[in-house]
Amino acid sequence: MTTGRFITFEGIDGSGKSTQSQTLKAAIEATGQDVILTREPGGSPGAEEIRSLVLTGEPDRWSAETEILLFTASRRDHLEKTIEPALKAGTTIISDRFADSTRVYQGATRGDLRGKVDQLHALMIGREPDLTFIIDMDPEIALKRGLARNSGEDRFEDFGLPFQETLRHGFLSLAKSFPERCVLIDGNRAPDAIAADIATQYAART
Amino acid sequence: MTTGRFITFEGIDGSGKSTQSQTLKAAIEATGQDVILTREPGGSPGAEEIRSLVLTGEPDRWSAETEILLFTASRRDHLEKTIEPALKAGTTIISDRFADSTRVYQGATRGDLRGKVDQLHALMIGREPDLTFIIDMDPEIALKRGLARNSGEDRFEDFGLPFQETLRHGFLSLAKSFPERCVLIDGNRAPDAIAADIATQYAART
Repeated sequence: MTTGRFITFEGIDGSGKSTQSQTLKAAIEATGQDVILTREPGGSPGAEEIRSLVLTGEPDRWSAETEILLFTASRRDHLEKTIEPALKAGTTIISDRFADSTRVYQGATRGDLRGKVDQLHALMIGREPDLTFIIDMDPEIALKRGLARNSGEDRFEDFGLPFQETLRHGFLSLAKSFPERCVLIDGNRAPDAIAADIATQYAART
Repeated sequence: MTTGRFITFEGIDGSGKSTQSQTLKAAIEATGQDVILTREPGGSPGAEEIRSLVLTGEPDRWSAETEILLFTASRRDHLEKTIEPALKAGTTIISDRFADSTRVYQGATRGDLRGKVDQLHALMIGREPDLTFIIDMDPEIALKRGLARNSGEDRFEDFGLPFQETLRHGFLSLAKSFPERCVLIDGNRAPDAIAADIATQYAART
């Protein structure tokens, strides 16, 4: 039995990750493969409980250090309970965010934390996706989309436009650091054009 | 201004840590010093929320790896929000459990995890108590006391007597590993006799 593929979508809030991951899921399913769509933080019952601790409340509720520990705890549960069992069963996993988000968000919050994020990942997670789509787009448009959702999970969106600009550059830099698995997608286009691009890139890497 | 002292109590559930830490607090306060009594997991509003995630629910709710991440997240918040500000203000801190509990409980659950616990501690906490009282007692008596409390926070007590025996030996071994800060206290005595012993040992180390 072959193991499934582990695909992630990354980018700033409002960049269209959720829409595009749903579209790719439907496209892969149309070929007859089993696909599970999941997300971070969250993706398993325990991880979803940790998600609500991290994403709600005041922006200064947790320090960046406590945050990366909570994100890593949530990721470990997600990996054990959802991702690894699915991959072993030959199912493809598409996750809306994974470890790259912690690298970029917490690295953007405090540059000196990136080393700790990487060490924590190596110690407690130790798994990278097989393929990562990084959707790059203008933070001014993305921020408006994100805020329009009004989900209540807005601790990071509250940090405003300069923070979103820093995140964008963090994701661009990440794409260069992991060229073997990261594909940069221009998100400043119509959703159908983006979806067609992703489908082409996916097919070229399967 | 001198910084406060950081004192911890460790031992299996039902060993009398809570009673003895309250008694020591009163004794130090009687000398005119400010003392804060705190506990782990918990000890700050955020850490208490993480506590309820870790200690309630089914015994197999979290893997040992996820558990040590949640305990470390809770400890980091406790350290930042409660312990460090108090010590800087010259207040003595007495904590009912700290990092030694994670070393012993998770090390007892899965011996191969002790290395990860130590690496996580070095990476994200990096602080040891100035003085640790380890209360050693017969697990059979301690277990009955612990269960009699019926707190609902019983994920670890559910593991039964052989597990408590393993924990006892873990704490004895820990006392030998950190002789400069750990004082072993015989808990198989009347509470007053134990308190007098702790007061004498405390005075000798102040």
